[in-house]
Order: sequence, then structure tokens, then C-alpha cells
Amino acid sequence: MSNKLRVAVIGAKGRIGSEAARAVAAAEDLELVAALDRDDKLAALTEAGAQVAVDLTHPDAVMGNLEFLVGHGVHAVVGTTGWTSERLAKLAEWLDASPPTGVLIAPNFSIGAVLTMAFARQAARFFESAEVVELHHPNKADAPSGTATRTAQLIAEARREAGCAPQPDATTTALDGARGADVDGVPVHAVRLRGLLAHQEVLLGGEGETLTIRHDSLHHSSFMPGILLGVRRVVSTPGLTFGLEHFLDLN
Amino acid sequence: MSNKLRVAVIGAKGRIGSEAARAVAAAEDLELVAALDRDDKLAALTEAGAQVAVDLTHPDAVMGNLEFLVGHGVHAVVGTTGWTSERLAKLAEWLDASPPTGVLIAPNFSIGAVLTMAFARQAARFFESAEVVELHHPNKADAPSGTATRTAQLIAEARREAGCAPQPDATTTALDGARGADVDGVPVHAVRLRGLLAHQEVLLGGEGETLTIRHDSLHHSSFMPGILLGVRRVVSTPGLTFGLEHFLDLN
Amino acid sequence: MSNKLRVAVIGAKGRIGSEAARAVAAAEDLELVAALDRDDKLAALTEAGAQVAVDLTHPDAVMGNLEFLVGHGVHAVVGTTGWTSERLAKLAEWLDASPPTGVLIAPNFSIGAVLTMAFARQAARFFESAEVVELHHPNKADAPSGTATRTAQLIAEARREAGCAPQPDATTTALDGARGADVDGVPVHAVRLRGLLAHQEVLLGGEGETLTIRHDSLHHSSFMPGILLGVRRVVSTPGLTFGLEHFLDLN
Amino acid sequence: MSNKLRVAVIGAKGRIGSEAARAVAAAEDLELVAALDRDDKLAALTEAGAQVAVDLTHPDAVMGNLEFLVGHGVHAVVGTTGWTSERLAKLAEWLDASPPTGVLIAPNFSIGAVLTMAFARQAARFFESAEVVELHHPNKADAPSGTATRTAQLIAEARREAGCAPQPDATTTALDGARGADVDGVPVHAVRLRGLLAHQEVLLGGEGETLTIRHDSLHHSSFMPGILLGVRRVVSTPGLTFGLEHFLDLN
Repeated sequence: MSNKLRVAVIGAKGRIGSEAARAVAAAEDLELVAALDRDDKLAALTEAGAQVAVDLTHPDAVMGNLEFLVGHGVHAVVGTTGWTSERLAKLAEWLDASPPTGVLIAPNFSIGAVLTMAFARQAARFFESAEVVELHHPNKADAPSGTATRTAQLIAEARREAGCAPQPDATTTALDGARGADVDGVPVHAVRLRGLLAHQEVLLGGEGETLTIRHDSLHHSSFMPGILLGVRRVVSTPGLTFGLEHFLDLN
Repeated sequence: MSNKLRVAVIGAKGRIGSEAARAVAAAEDLELVAALDRDDKLAALTEAGAQVAVDLTHPDAVMGNLEFLVGHGVHAVVGTTGWTSERLAKLAEWLDASPPTGVLIAPNFSIGAVLTMAFARQAARFFESAEVVELHHPNKADAPSGTATRTAQLIAEARREAGCAPQPDATTTALDGARGADVDGVPVHAVRLRGLLAHQEVLLGGEGETLTIRHDSLHHSSFMPGILLGVRRVVSTPGLTFGLEHFLDLN
Repeated sequence: MSNKLRVAVIGAKGRIGSEAARAVAAAEDLELVAALDRDDKLAALTEAGAQVAVDLTHPDAVMGNLEFLVGHGVHAVVGTTGWTSERLAKLAEWLDASPPTGVLIAPNFSIGAVLTMAFARQAARFFESAEVVELHHPNKADAPSGTATRTAQLIAEARREAGCAPQPDATTTALDGARGADVDGVPVHAVRLRGLLAHQEVLLGGEGETLTIRHDSLHHSSFMPGILLGVRRVVSTPGLTFGLEHFLDLN
Repeated sequence: MSNKLRVAVIGAKGRIGSEAARAVAAAEDLELVAALDRDDKLAALTEAGAQVAVDLTHPDAVMGNLEFLVGHGVHAVVGTTGWTSERLAKLAEWLDASPPTGVLIAPNFSIGAVLTMAFARQAARFFESAEVVELHHPNKADAPSGTATRTAQLIAEARREAGCAPQPDATTTALDGARGADVDGVPVHAVRLRGLLAHQEVLLGGEGETLTIRHDSLHHSSFMPGILLGVRRVVSTPGLTFGLEHFLDLN
């Protein structure tokens, strides 16, 4: 018998799900044992002997899926959104009853995006100024992006904890909107440009120097390395892990 | 006798003026024949045989200086601001009375900034999207910068003349200010960061590609090549020239 | 009868050709009247009443195609490569015999790439230093890219014509390759990075300032606007035009 | 009596040293109690009651200075270069004999540069490709810069430890130098451009995404925050610390 890790994908006909199924199948140390879509029974997972399941479904389906998975001792890597404190509390109960089981919930599987946020948070307290510029295709409905808002919040939090002074800004005359959106004191600017996909730049400035951290996402295949990393790590990480950054061993 | 061009600087004790005097003195084809400050008499210019004068003074002084210069057939390169249509009309009168004399008025002597504006104007009609991001030190009082506003206006004008459609933007939910300031339909974003001096990025995007033109000004010595170029060209360009771009022979 | 321009695509099953056929069909002012592949007869073009043909075939096929097209007074937009002076001379003969017919041959249909080269050429003589950094996916076989080499040559040519001094470079100790490839005195650096497609940065530096022109190509759909622009313009431009830049009316 | 930390600067007439003296004097929690140059006696330090000394002198002077400082229980922050294993061993002996004393030796006091290296090292193992582009003024004698070489070595080391595959690169035809210098398998490119000071870009690329970390040093005042941070931390960090990164509490 192969000693590859036995992996299932739930939501395997979706755009990301189908790519995840392909990526699992292509990985030398993983075996794709089941690829389920909405009409498939969850029992197929346990019948196939899945050790880990990747859930890329809908907020409507994810709680049912996780109750089944945790109940059967199947580890889970979850990209599905819609997490509230109630839902997390429920999941914690299920995990308490199944101590060896691990669940990773990740709002973002792009390792580049996760590192950008981690580095921005680490660096923020060493610089007087910090701003975020995010750039996306013009079909995007919200501005700024969720990732940019989250990045700004992490920066603001790190600066607050370190007791940093407010950012210097002598602006007295400004056109409306010129200085961006204010997210906890960190200006965030959103560019919408045909030809772009999803990009973010964190700018940090101190006396005589600047540090810029830029993430360019050019294809949603960028989620695959993060999903596979999650699969490999979750099997030895019991309980709930929220955020891929906890699996990156940064130091 | 030397056949170097004989140049005077008026306002030679100011920050830019003193540097201009040094730059003229250091140029092999130019001779600095007079360096005047506010208490010096303009007659010193003609006594020294100046063929060109660089005016880097104040709006209060510049009209008197130009009346004298044009009246005496001395060409002028002017960096002083505060030009109104009344002032330009007056200057035109003086020039009419002294046909061979040339005057260059330039709001910006940085060749990089002037080229950025020229290229942005040329390229604007070929792309669906155009935005401007300017980045300055945090002691700046206005946002966006005058150069960024002017750049956005040139982009908007070029797109209007070419009959371009409005820029695509599907934003329906936005934090206040996230999409920048609207300058004639072109979003302009202003970043203020310790460690920066003066920087500007023009972003243009079309199907599958983007073009970015970025100007970084790291020291006000960047004005010197433009001032010297103006000095060399104004002597053979009678009448009024407004904007250094007309001396760059772009094509 | 429609007064749309009647357009044929030759090589319509290739990667770029099929996209060009779709782009022509989608354009409001154009009508796709024929889409030929290698086994189709050229006569189908004239039977369909094509006024312009887009040739995206092979060096082996293009001369036969052009002889037919020019002979029948059909204008042509050619993306096929492999042009030699012998081939161009032959084409010139055919065009001499058919004065109203126009042919556009373009080594690059990306408007962003063409503008980058045009702007680099225009700006090169105003700066002391100029270098080119091109960045591509790691499956590319040649380094630097043809576009980067061409850009460096244009920069070198413009500087030579303007009598610029050699670039300043005090390097006395260098690791092999650190300063890039030397293309007519212009250093060119090639980066190969997973995740990238095709990108190029032209860096120009003078006293106290730098100007950077960057082109990012994120999808080969970026060729379509240039092809359509060529189609619309070639019908009123008799004779041979080499290079899309001549249709951009830069000034 | 003030409870400010009592700080001395040795080498206080040098370019960096004089700025360090000013920075110490300006800091609210520090007091500049002595500013020594080459002809001053070290005894002046202890007479002034210095608790910490900043050494910005020469390799010829630094060992004598440190023997005195450690021998008298004065903590030291050292920017002077020329460290060999012999010198470090000697210093370790002195420190063994004076357990509470702390010495920080830092090859680079720019927090931005140190963070760039730390982040590059952390991120390197998550991406298939990594290259370094450094950009400096054209008066620099060596290429690539020491910082770029060190950064590439850290990247290579991190990839080796993580068992990463060699970087993908299909280049078969290349102009000499196009692919940069090879530093332990990491390509490093050096740009020399008038107008620049000292800049570095680390490019990391994986499936569908890239991460870029860029440091721009625009003035040598960028060393001051790192020197002050070193002064504040060294007093509570006995023994030898090599590298400012150890005082940044990254995690």
C-alpha cells in the first residue's frame, strides 16, 4: 500500500476546487482519493479512506461538512468563508470531542499575500509612516480590498502595541479622497486598472529610507502551494488553526 | 574674448538660485557674468554684458525684472511662479516691442517630470484606464501635488480629444477616499511617507498589459539640467515659450 | 449592406490567430468575413470580399500570402516574423505594382511595448545613465529578450545621435555578470522568475532624478488592441509601414 | 540627576559619527556625555560617566577602544568594520571577563536593509525563484554591493536548509552577463545609475504570484534609528550580539 497522504477535495467542480484536485493529484507525496461536489455523499470520503479533506464549498455547506469530518477524525483544510464567532465556537466543541483532529481555516491561501501581511506587521513599528496601495482589475466591486484592509489593521495594531506616535502628515489643503481611506490611522489607496489582476504594496518610511513590500497575484493558481502546505501540516497539528501564517514557521 | 554664452542669475542667494549659479559657472559653454540678489541693481546685468538671465526670484519681483530684461534685449529663463493671464499679456506686449528676445517660463525644470507629463499625455488615449499616484515627504501641505493634478488634467484632455470612453470602474462599495481624488475623471492618490522626497507614478492599463511611468526626484539639483538646457535654447527662440517640453524636441 | 470594414484572418487556428479572429468579430466597426487556416485556399478571401487581411502564420507561408493579397489589392497587417532585406525588397516590388495597397509589418503588436521603446528612445539623450531590466517566466530560452535588446539599441542610437558622453560607471571590482550584458554600451539585465509573464523596465538617471518606464504584459490578449488599430489604419496608408509606432501619431 | 542613558560617541567628527552625536543629543531618553575623535583620550569616557559608547572609527582603532570599554564595563555599539574570527575571539575573551557588559556589532544599521535581509531569508523557501537586483549611484567601485551578496547568501542558505530544488531557468542562449552574477545559485544584478543612492530589490516568484521586497536608502541618516535602537537595547543584552536583526524581535 502506498504511504502517500490520502486527500479528498470537497467542492471539486468549482474554479478553485477543480484546480486543487488537480494539484493534489499531481503532488508526489499526496493521493487524491475522492473529489466530491454538491450532490455527492460525504460517506464517500470515509469509504475512500481520506485522511485530510480540503473544503472549498459555500458558507451554507461548510458547517455540515466539518461536523462530519471532525466526527470521523478526518483533518480539514478550509478555504470556505463566512466565519463568525458562533461558528468557530461550534467547531471548537466538535474538535474538543475529537482531540487528535486538526482543522486549518485560511482566509487567504496565497503564501505571498500571507507573507506580505506578516512582514508588514513585523516591520510596522520601526517606521514613522505606513501606507497601503492595492491595485486590482476594474471589475472589482469593493474598495479597498479585504486583504488591504486587513493589512492596514495589522499595521495599526502593531504600531499601537509598540506605542508608536501617530503618522506625520502636514496636509492642510487636500482634494477629497486624495489621501486615501483611513483604516485605523493607516491610509489605504485603491487603484482600479484594466490589465491588472490583484496586487498590493505596503510602503513604510523612516528617516532617510523606505521599505516596500509588494505582492503581485497573476493567477489564482497562486493558491495551490498554500493549500498543499496546509494539507501536509494539518495532519500533525491537532485543534483549530486560523490563518496560514501559523504554518509558515516565520522567525 | 571667450565665445561662451554670457549668463546672469537673479535670485542667486536662494536655495535653487545659488545652485543655478554654481551650475552655470561649472558648464563649459557658459560663463556666469553676474549673480544678483534682492539688493543688487539690474543695471549690473547689462554692464556685465549678460546675454541670458535666469530669474529665480519672487512673484513680486519677476515682472520688474522681465520688463528690464526684455527692454534691454536680454533673453530670460524664468522659474519664478505666479503667472496669470494678465501678467502673460503684459509680457507679450514687451516681447512684441523687442522681436529677437526670447523668454522661457517653466513651471517645472525637472526634465524627468516634464517627460513624465509628456509621455502620459501621449499614451493616455491608447489605454482604457489611467490613474496617478504621487508620493511625497510628510511635510507637504497640499494633496495631491500640483504636478500630479496637472498630469491628470493632461491625461483627461488627451482622452477627451481622442473620444475615449470613461474609465471602467465597477466599485459599488467603497470606504471614503479609497478611490482617490477625482481630477477630470482621472483618480489621483497622494501618499505621504517619511524618507521620501518627490515621486510620481502614472499607471495606464489596457487589455492584458499595463504601462507605468515613474519619476523619482531625489534632490533639487534635478532642476539644473533643465535650467541649462533652457539657457542654451532660449537665445535662438524669440518670443514667449511656456513649458520646458517645447525645448525637448519630442517626436 | 453594412459599412463595416471587411476583415479576414489567416492563421486563424493559431493561439494568437484565433484570438485575433474573436477580437475582429467583437469589434463594432469590423466584420470578420473569413478565417483561414493552413489548408484553406486564399481565394476564399477575395470571394468573401475582404478589404484587409491579418496574417499570423509562419515565415514559410507569409510571402505567398502577401503576393496574393497585394496582387488583389487587399491591405495586410502582418505579425509573422522572419523578415530579411531580400524579403522586404520583394514585397516593395509587389507594392510598387499596386500603389493604393497598404501593408503593416509589426514585430510587436503590444501598444505598451511599442510606447515603452518610443519613450525610451525619446528620453535617452536627456539622462547620463540608462539601463534595461527585463523580467520573464523561467521557461524562456533566450536572455535578454528581443524586445530588451531592441530597446537598448534604440537608446544607444539616440544617445549617439545626440552626442552623449559614455555612461558613468566607476566599477573596478565586479563578480562576473553582475553589471549585465552590454548592448551597444547599454547594460541589460535579464531576470527569470516563476509567476512572471513578460515585463520590462527602462531606467534613466540624471543629476538628482530618475525616470522609469515599465511595461507589464500579463496576457497575450495585449496584442489585440494593436492588431485592430493596425487594421483600421492600414487601409488609408498605402505602401509599406514597418513598426506599429508609425501608426501611433506620437508627438 | 537625570535618568537618561549616558552615551558617548567615538569617531564623532566622521560623517556618520557626527550625525550619530547629533541624533543621541536629540533623543529624549539619551544624554550625549562625550564626543571623542582620534586625538581624544578614552579616559574622557569614564570620566564623563558614559554607560554606552558608539564606536564609528576605523579597523585600526576599534580593538583598542573595545578593550578599554569592556574592561571598564561600558557597553558598546559598533559600526566599525573589519571583523575577523581572530578579532571576535579576542573580544569574546574580554567579554568573558566582564559578564554584565554588552557589545553589539552591526555590519548595517539601516533597519530597512536589515529587515529586507530578514524577510528575504524567511520567504526564500516558499518560492521556486529568487533573484536580487541592487541599484546604486555610478561612483560605486564594487558590483554587486556587499549587502546584495549577503542577501543572496542568506536566501541560498535558507533554500538549502529547506531542501528546495534548484531555481528553474531554461536559458539556452544568452548574452554574456545577461543573467547576472551567480551567488550560491541566486542571480544578482547590479544597476549603476546617476541620481540613485542605494537601493535593493529582492524578487521571489512562485506559481501565479510574486513577492518583492524593496529597500530604498535615500540618505545616510537612515542609520540613526538603528544606532539609537542598538544603544537602548545593548545595555540589557550582556555578551556579544552580531547583527542588528537580533534586536528587532521579529517573529
